[in-house]
Amino acid sequence: MAKNEAAKGTAKTAITPTRAEDYPEWYQQVVRAADMAENSPVRGCMVIKPWGYAIWENIQRELDTMFKETGHKNAYFPLFIPKSFMEKEAEHVEGFAKECAVVTHHRLVAGPNGGLVPDPEAKLEEPLIVRPTSETIIGAAFAQWVQSYRDLPLLINQWANVVRWEMRTRLFLRTTEFLWQEGHTAHATEAEAREETMKMLGVYATFARDFMAVPVFEGKKTESERFPGAVDTFCIEAMMQDRKALQAGTSHFLGQNFAKASGIRFQTKTETEEFAWTTSWGVSTRLVGAMVMSHADDDGLVLPPRLAPTHVILLPVYRGDETRAQVDAYIDALAAELRGQRLGERRVEVEVDRRDIRGGDKQWEWVKKGAPLRVEIGPRDVEGGMVMVARRDRPVKEKTSLPRGEFVAKVVEILEEMQAGLLARASAFRDEHTHVVEDKAAFEAFFKAKGDKEIHGGFALAHWAGDARVEAELKDRYKVTVRCIPSGGFAGAPWADALVGEGRCIFTGQPSPQRVVFAKSY
Amino acid sequence: MAKNEAAKGTAKTAITPTRAEDYPEWYQQVVRAADMAENSPVRGCMVIKPWGYAIWENIQRELDTMFKETGHKNAYFPLFIPKSFMEKEAEHVEGFAKECAVVTHHRLVAGPNGGLVPDPEAKLEEPLIVRPTSETIIGAAFAQWVQSYRDLPLLINQWANVVRWEMRTRLFLRTTEFLWQEGHTAHATEAEAREETMKMLGVYATFARDFMAVPVFEGKKTESERFPGAVDTFCIEAMMQDRKALQAGTSHFLGQNFAKASGIRFQTKTETEEFAWTTSWGVSTRLVGAMVMSHADDDGLVLPPRLAPTHVILLPVYRGDETRAQVDAYIDALAAELRGQRLGERRVEVEVDRRDIRGGDKQWEWVKKGAPLRVEIGPRDVEGGMVMVARRDRPVKEKTSLPRGEFVAKVVEILEEMQAGLLARASAFRDEHTHVVEDKAAFEAFFKAKGDKEIHGGFALAHWAGDARVEAELKDRYKVTVRCIPSGGFAGAPWADALVGEGRCIFTGQPSPQRVVFAKSY
Ligand SMILES: [Zn+2]
Ligand SMILES: [Zn+2]
Repeated sequence: MAKNEAAKGTAKTAITPTRAEDYPEWYQQVVRAADMAENSPVRGCMVIKPWGYAIWENIQRELDTMFKETGHKNAYFPLFIPKSFMEKEAEHVEGFAKECAVVTHHRLVAGPNGGLVPDPEAKLEEPLIVRPTSETIIGAAFAQWVQSYRDLPLLINQWANVVRWEMRTRLFLRTTEFLWQEGHTAHATEAEAREETMKMLGVYATFARDFMAVPVFEGKKTESERFPGAVDTFCIEAMMQDRKALQAGTSHFLGQNFAKASGIRFQTKTETEEFAWTTSWGVSTRLVGAMVMSHADDDGLVLPPRLAPTHVILLPVYRGDETRAQVDAYIDALAAELRGQRLGERRVEVEVDRRDIRGGDKQWEWVKKGAPLRVEIGPRDVEGGMVMVARRDRPVKEKTSLPRGEFVAKVVEILEEMQAGLLARASAFRDEHTHVVEDKAAFEAFFKAKGDKEIHGGFALAHWAGDARVEAELKDRYKVTVRCIPSGGFAGAPWADALVGEGRCIFTGQPSPQRVVFAKSY
Repeated sequence: MAKNEAAKGTAKTAITPTRAEDYPEWYQQVVRAADMAENSPVRGCMVIKPWGYAIWENIQRELDTMFKETGHKNAYFPLFIPKSFMEKEAEHVEGFAKECAVVTHHRLVAGPNGGLVPDPEAKLEEPLIVRPTSETIIGAAFAQWVQSYRDLPLLINQWANVVRWEMRTRLFLRTTEFLWQEGHTAHATEAEAREETMKMLGVYATFARDFMAVPVFEGKKTESERFPGAVDTFCIEAMMQDRKALQAGTSHFLGQNFAKASGIRFQTKTETEEFAWTTSWGVSTRLVGAMVMSHADDDGLVLPPRLAPTHVILLPVYRGDETRAQVDAYIDALAAELRGQRLGERRVEVEVDRRDIRGGDKQWEWVKKGAPLRVEIGPRDVEGGMVMVARRDRPVKEKTSLPRGEFVAKVVEILEEMQAGLLARASAFRDEHTHVVEDKAAFEAFFKAKGDKEIHGGFALAHWAGDARVEAELKDRYKVTVRCIPSGGFAGAPWADALVGEGRCIFTGQPSPQRVVFAKSY
């Protein structure tokens, strides 16, 4: 196994293959080695294991706080959507009714050969769809809740599971069932709804940068990549370490489309009746995958401290039974002191790993799980009042001996430094692999890989005149799409100026209002 | 409307009908008037509105803390269960495969008359069941995770939605989809698994008393009421204000049944291979219903402060525009001071209701929502440095003028007093309507209502020899069941002694080891 080889120094990395050798397989192995998730016996659905789920819980808590601070309240709507609801909004049907889980019966009975079969007598009059997204069912509720301008704005969020039938799945990145939040709001005016759409896009971008340590482009989707039924879709786009783009969150201005489909009407101050203006916005467990692919290295997961379930893992090194009690007492006292410190709103989370397994294996397990700080403590440390600290953002073998008091005093500073360091590294990577592309030949060269598994390309900033046929052709020929028409997330980047100003499409020569971001993507 | 009549003093209560008039309808009206939940267009599924969901979030947070403090970690398992998994455990199939949502197709296509129909070409080879509970799918995961005694105990919890097809539903109490948590653990020995089962029953009982302010019997279910596939089922049972019992939580000792069905084997220290011993335990959004029916009164919801989304609602009383700014400033400063106080781990939650609606209506809205403290503040209060405080556990018209500083200093004490008061009142009610019943005639008299809607009966403590036929007959004739064979939750009650000691079944004369709790139930 890679783990033991690494521990013995016969291999250079704990994860096989490395990123350079086979990026997609490296990703799967990182997730597995960190014990975050696994495939389940249900096709396309994953089991999120405790370490992965704890990261999601941290994401949830921080986002939930941001949603509540911006005036939203949580609610819960049914898992099932009547088929007729999906049929109400024409584009929405096209986008979501296709690959979904359809409930047709409400009972099983014993079949002819002993097993269970759907009871023909319990066939539903109208099939139910397991929600792929909840615009239609929430729209039906909003239509009841909204009567007057006094009921607006209505600012609701839901944390839920959703199902979109997928043929090719990858843990966290694309699964048939996934966990997410979906914000749904209704407003009296278009301006207010547009402001909400951009505000929540901003919340996502802030969260990505400040918590996930992932820099993101903020921008608008082209028509072809719009949410089915939306007037405008906005997104945040991050660059993974294979230089592909990953859409990490979306915010939709739905205009009055869903209000009309669901009948969300209100009486204005002047007693006329109007349709409300609605928005929706969401992020999902995909964020966990984005975080992995942004920061993990060839030794496994690397966690931004603000989202790490455990900040400090304490590893006792026992030397015989006599000193065991002393080591344990020293560790317990240290753990208590560390837990008294605060990283933002959270206390510093400390875990003690007393399992009776080889010290080397134990060390490597926590490297692969991405715990920010590993602290070894043996009898000599106890005697000298010291701790031996290893940081996950430094080479695995690099350890620093620190006086215990100094470590306690500095732990929050170190964690903040690591958090900032991860963002700086990811930003430098993104900026380095974002190129201004001036013509078709350069575009083609940029997106052409030399071999099967070569990591290549990146974000190309190029003029494009909005022609959907060009878009389709690029997608077909290079698997490259317009990730967004960027409006933010790039201030200070070396190529930032290139995103301002008109030009001519590098494919058609037609006038283009600004450069857009092209990339291969997840 | 009842609300306005009550405000005007022409009716005595804000909720119509009252408990005495029509208890089931009163319940629905309380839930509606508090704006907690409503029926959805999906048969049997509810929409949990922000006020109801915030209560559930508080329940979740407190329980989650208790689960983590007892060593459990959260994870997430698939929504869908392959049909074959349900077939693995014979009793389990009988109990759960019957009324469930069956997914048979993974695509919709345009049908002959324009609408969408399940695509015959996308029929699943094996139908999927929307989880009614997750023993089987989690068992499959545990079988992979557990190899050695070193992997045990495995202590996992999941927060999730589940679906059990129900014909007759009531908001929170019985719905086709509901939210819950399900703990699932695996242990090396029977003793450990039994200890876990009882520990979690204890956690539920503590939560019910300390947070919900609901006294509960803890005990064992009879064979006929056991969880399908369990060896023993334990429960907590609460008395509602109509004197019926409500099962508020269950904890199951599953023996090796599910370990055998799922193949959860481990290597022991002595290198033999054994099946693990498993448990499962759960509570659901039903708890919200239990809380309503325990404390609400004929004016609406009454919330135990520890679970209330808002502790103090501040209600400005403006008298003309000149003093408006002063009132607002006074309220903002007061809100900040109050939020600086802590009720347990939570800060004191304060909301300011500045909506431009009639003061009387506003007051009654918060009465019906069960906010613990309503505080009115007008220009005269500002001048005198006073606040006008109304407690939800006192008559609606009773208001006390207090110096602002005194109120801030006392607010936590008042809330704690209210919390304790609700528990004391619910305990007195439960104790009063729990009767020792010595013979069949008394039993019959106890459970016979004089009219259709008379609130009658309660908990009957009687000897019973364990005869399932007697149980079935009582259920059939009186709709009365054995709620539990009690082991705790009654210390100090006037009839506590009656629960200890042998006797003879009041129906058959056969020897009985102890009295059991009979009641009608939800
Ligand atoms: Zn480059
Ligand atoms: Zn009585």
